This record gives sequence, C-alpha cells and structure tokens, in this order.
Amino acid sequence: MTGSLTVVGLGPGRAELTTPAASAALAQATDLIGYGPYLDRIVAASAGQVRHATGNRVELDRARHALELAASGKSVAVVSGGDPGVFAMAAAVFEAIEAGPAEWRALDIRVEPGVTAMLAAAAEIGAPLGGDFCAISLSDNLKSWTTITRRLEAACAGDFVVALYNPLSKARPHQLGEAFEILRRHKAPSTVVVMVRAAGSGEMRRITTTLGEVNPAQADMRTLVLIGSTATRLITRDGREPWIYTPRREELAP
Amino acid sequence: MTGSLTVVGLGPGRAELTTPAASAALAQATDLIGYGPYLDRIVAASAGQVRHATGNRVELDRARHALELAASGKSVAVVSGGDPGVFAMAAAVFEAIEAGPAEWRALDIRVEPGVTAMLAAAAEIGAPLGGDFCAISLSDNLKSWTTITRRLEAACAGDFVVALYNPLSKARPHQLGEAFEILRRHKAPSTVVVMVRAAGSGEMRRITTTLGEVNPAQADMRTLVLIGSTATRLITRDGREPWIYTPRREELAP
Repeated sequence: MTGSLTVVGLGPGRAELTTPAASAALAQATDLIGYGPYLDRIVAASAGQVRHATGNRVELDRARHALELAASGKSVAVVSGGDPGVFAMAAAVFEAIEAGPAEWRALDIRVEPGVTAMLAAAAEIGAPLGGDFCAISLSDNLKSWTTITRRLEAACAGDFVVALYNPLSKARPHQLGEAFEILRRHKAPSTVVVMVRAAGSGEMRRITTTLGEVNPAQADMRTLVLIGSTATRLITRDGREPWIYTPRREELAP
Repeated sequence: MTGSLTVVGLGPGRAELTTPAASAALAQATDLIGYGPYLDRIVAASAGQVRHATGNRVELDRARHALELAASGKSVAVVSGGDPGVFAMAAAVFEAIEAGPAEWRALDIRVEPGVTAMLAAAAEIGAPLGGDFCAISLSDNLKSWTTITRRLEAACAGDFVVALYNPLSKARPHQLGEAFEILRRHKAPSTVVVMVRAAGSGEMRRITTTLGEVNPAQADMRTLVLIGSTATRLITRDGREPWIYTPRREELAP
C-alpha cells in the first residue's frame, strides 16, 4: 500500500501564517479534501490535483473518504483551518482509522501542525495566554452540556485563562450566554473578556469587555472568546485598543 | 517615535514550521534579540542586522533592552521558540511596558504567532488534543508550587488532556515526579502519558507509557509531557509506535 494521508493545518487565515511545511504537503497531494471555504483558500498547487469539497458537519464521512482514497494509492491532504489537532480534522481521521479496516493502520499518516485560533487571537491583542490556560469547545454536537459545564467549573477552580472555541452557532445560539452565566458564579464581574473575530485573517475585529458586561450576541462562529484569569491585565493606550496580557508571575488567591 | 518591536515565534525547530510572516518580521528587523540558541536558528537576514544574544533566565532584562532599542528608533525583533505568547517572551515584553516609561505605550508593538510545542508534539503522535485541554508550565520560578498543584488538581477535576511545559530542569529535578504523584491521586494508572522530546525539530523522540509506569527521569527541558483524559486512546500498529488520539465524542464519568 503506497498511499498517504496528511492532515494539514492552514493556520488562521492569512496566507503568511500557513507554514511552509503545510504548503509543501498541499503541493504534493494528488487529492485535497476539506470544507469548501478552507479549500477556497488554497491557491492551485499542481495540474491534475483533485479537490473534494464537503460541508462542515460531515467530518467522519470526510475522514473515511480520505482514507479510502489513500488506501487506493492517492496522496491525500485533508485540509483544516488553524491547527488540525485542535477541534478540527485530525481526531476525526484517527477515529475513522480505529473503526476502519486493519489495512488503514499501515498507511503513511501525518499531521502538519498550524497556528490555532487561540494563538492568533492572543497575538492580535497582546499576551493573554502568558499564564496557564485551557481550551474548551462549546459545541455540544459531540459531548453533553453537562460535560461542558464541569469543564468550565474546573477551569474556574484552577483560575486558568480560558479560550472558548465554537462559542455558538445558529443551531445553538444560547450556549455562550449560558457559559458566561456559569463563569460568573465563580469569577469576578471585572474579569477581562475579549471576543476576537477572524483573528489572523487580516480582518480581525475585537471587543474588549468584562465578564459582568459581556454581550454574547456579539459573538459568532468565527469568534474566539478569551476569558482572563485573576492575573490578566489591561495596558491602556491613548486612542488605541488596550493590550491584554497575563503576567508570568502569578499566584492563586488562598 | 518611529521604532517598532515584534515578538516573533520561530515555531518548534524545523525551518519549515516557521511561518512566512515570522520570517518576514525577522528579515525586516534592524536588531534581533533573544536566547542564543534561538538566534542561532535564524539564517542571516540582511547585512548590518545586529544580534543581541542573551541567557535563558533574563527575560525581563531582555524585554527592557528591546524596548529601549525600539524607543531609539530601531526595528527590533524579539525572538522566541514556539509561540511567543505561550510561556515565552510576549508576556515579559508587556510586563516591561506596563512598568516602563509612558512613551513605550506609543511604540508599534506586534506579536507574530507560531506553532507552540504542544501542537508540534500532538502532530508527531496523532491527535491527543482532540478534546478539551489545558497547558501548564511546571516552572516555579515565577509562581508557587501551591499554585501549580491547584492547577493540576483542577485539570483532573475537569478531565482535561494536560500538556506540561518546562517539566523539569537541573535546578528543579523533582517537579515532574511530584506532578505525576498529584495526578495519580485523581487519575487511573492506565491513563496515557506521552513524553515527546524535541517535537517538530526533525529529531523527535517519544516515550509512550502510562501514568502508573512513567519515569520522570526520562524527561528533560526539551520534553513536552502529554497526559491523556479518560477518553484518550492508543491505536496499535504492527512494528510501529501507536497513534494517540482523543475522540471528539467524549463524556465525563458521572
């Protein structure tokens, strides 16, 4: 079996944030598979390269299709935004391998990492991830809201900086507001909250607010929500958005 | 004031994992400042570019020096490995700005994100960060061991996948072992642990083990330690290292 499959992270949007290793993996592929808007970001790499665009909600079908192509001898690139290992396609590919035919385990499978949304968002606003932090997806397509609630509570108990991925969608418009309610039970109203939309795309927009005042309706699927720890601070600037950072020196309250 | 300062993430090691945006920022700088081994990774960008190599433990001095150069009109690049916002130089720069002269707030300050060690390590071994996860630095240079302990316990309470940065050093050889002791109080001995050394450098070495059997003496400063959630799994392969992944579909035990 000579086929290969590489799960490629495009990074957050701007072409200059796609690693050369990811670009090389795309150029070498015979077949590109991914959510349409991600494929649209890729400049035609080579003549004869086949593109398989899919919807956003069919990750496991897309993974199986990619593995079948690889098993037939193709060099397949499965395309993700950001980093493929963070709430993206890599886990779906390994789920499909584990449940699939034994021969898929003999394929040459690689993952090309990328700049994930929380790193791009952090870089746009300062250094909010300067202390310990956690990343939580608010999507309950694949886990229960009870699990998400317990994760949010644990994040408060540890006073982590929190990065929320997939904060809401048309199918689940209320989840971000519910998450803020849970966080407000454990964290001060003055806690820094920044909603960063389209970080690293060249079209970034940010809303800097607090846990007491945040309006979840201002977020959408392209928003990464950062919630500070007790140590996270603003540096004000004349006529410009403040920088947000978490000092490296920090102590939890007793 | 016309100077600028960009905190640049080189990524985990291989030149192909440095973003074009980071490379461009390095090429445009008049002055490069950073820990010597990071500067050594940068190919000479332009004639007349000045390099200021420093030790590993003087982040705040290095940040102030960089800001003084920028305030004097230079285009300064402060160089970090990985992503500069994750346990690296970006937070030190903003700490220095907040404590420094008001004119530093008028400087053009940017952060160029990069592929941080946990993303590179995850990509080398599968998709261990497929669920919710947290990142904790074990260095107690700047926070107490009590704070670190509480973070580790919260990570267990939330059943996060855990990425441990700075697991130990010559000055603090016992901390990783103590961290495993804390985790063992809350997590099963069968919990997946992977120690990934020099991920993304082309010289990666990995040790796949369990929380019950892990030997902390096998880690060093270049090791990223990944500890699975209850959902994290191995996919075995004939004659090769297993893939490690965390399924997207997961539930906490009641």
